[in-house]
Amino acid sequence: MALQERKLQGHAMMKEMITLELFEVIYQRRSIRSYLRKKVDREILDKIVDAGRWAPTAGNAQAWQFVIVDDPIRITKLKSVSPGIFHEPAFVIAICTDRDAAIARMGPQGAMLALMDVCMAAENILLAACALGLGACVVRSFHQQAVGVMLGCPEGCVTELLIAGGFPDQEPTAPSRKNIEEIRFFNRWEDK
Amino acid sequence: MALQERKLQGHAMMKEMITLELFEVIYQRRSIRSYLRKKVDREILDKIVDAGRWAPTAGNAQAWQFVIVDDPIRITKLKSVSPGIFHEPAFVIAICTDRDAAIARMGPQGAMLALMDVCMAAENILLAACALGLGACVVRSFHQQAVGVMLGCPEGCVTELLIAGGFPDQEPTAPSRKNIEEIRFFNRWEDK
Repeated sequence: MALQERKLQGHAMMKEMITLELFEVIYQRRSIRSYLRKKVDREILDKIVDAGRWAPTAGNAQAWQFVIVDDPIRITKLKSVSPGIFHEPAFVIAICTDRDAAIARMGPQGAMLALMDVCMAAENILLAACALGLGACVVRSFHQQAVGVMLGCPEGCVTELLIAGGFPDQEPTAPSRKNIEEIRFFNRWEDK
Repeated sequence: MALQERKLQGHAMMKEMITLELFEVIYQRRSIRSYLRKKVDREILDKIVDAGRWAPTAGNAQAWQFVIVDDPIRITKLKSVSPGIFHEPAFVIAICTDRDAAIARMGPQGAMLALMDVCMAAENILLAACALGLGACVVRSFHQQAVGVMLGCPEGCVTELLIAGGFPDQEPTAPSRKNIEEIRFFNRWEDK
């Protein structure tokens, strides 16, 4: 589908919140790093974060927070400490874990379990964004402490990853992937 | 929908590979820990692992492997070192990272980036399983070294998590979740 057509369809879909079949979204999703200069409604941003809230979370700990940055001045500040953010996103979602709470609840493994939780939540958010006609990209190259200060994260809370997004201004082709035979085994390593 | 009806629908869906709309899957997915004694076709297992293969992966490193265990004797052995596996799953997917390859490619952060990648892949797999009428559950309580030996993981590769699954034999209600207002902020911590 041509980019323009997809954009128009994206706008229409958002209005009606009609989205795509799961596998279609999984296969169509790309990391989008270039965005139109157009705001995304907070209703839509809430919808995609809500998708993250329904990811699995070890022991139902939910030691996660989602800071949606949609103020252009704040986005510019975030960019200044985040080499992984390209171009001008319409929003950046900072996904944080409350490590202290996670450790208190889940024991010494808590911080790692909370990190794993937020990654699964991030995938839901990426898929939800794609299904609603948005483009988004996980950003892991940023200054964790600086971002924490900018967002006002309390002590014990850590920004684990950022998701930059907006209306897509590019239509990348699928990246190469290893064949499934190279990475999937049955019952024992290398057995196919 | 009643469990029996869902099961029947699940079987029909699998035949045709017709699945659900993304948000429906995200909201309906539950951690399923009890399974029917019924094998899952390898074609279906491949389809859900393939969904994992299309998750984002930092620097396109793809430092991941998926070992699908569907031999009941091997599943029993895995269970003996995995307190987090309940009942009798029809399959266990061990998701591994090649930490050495990830570090060689991505630098000292490579191991953590690869862990984050496999968690996003795991979420795709959970959603794909749900969409195809299967039930599945992330398992993080298992003896990492023992599982590695059982699977024949080479040195430098680590089993990061297991996904146990099968045809669902339970229909759990939705777990409680914090309200979105408690965990989602705009622009700055606590700002709503």
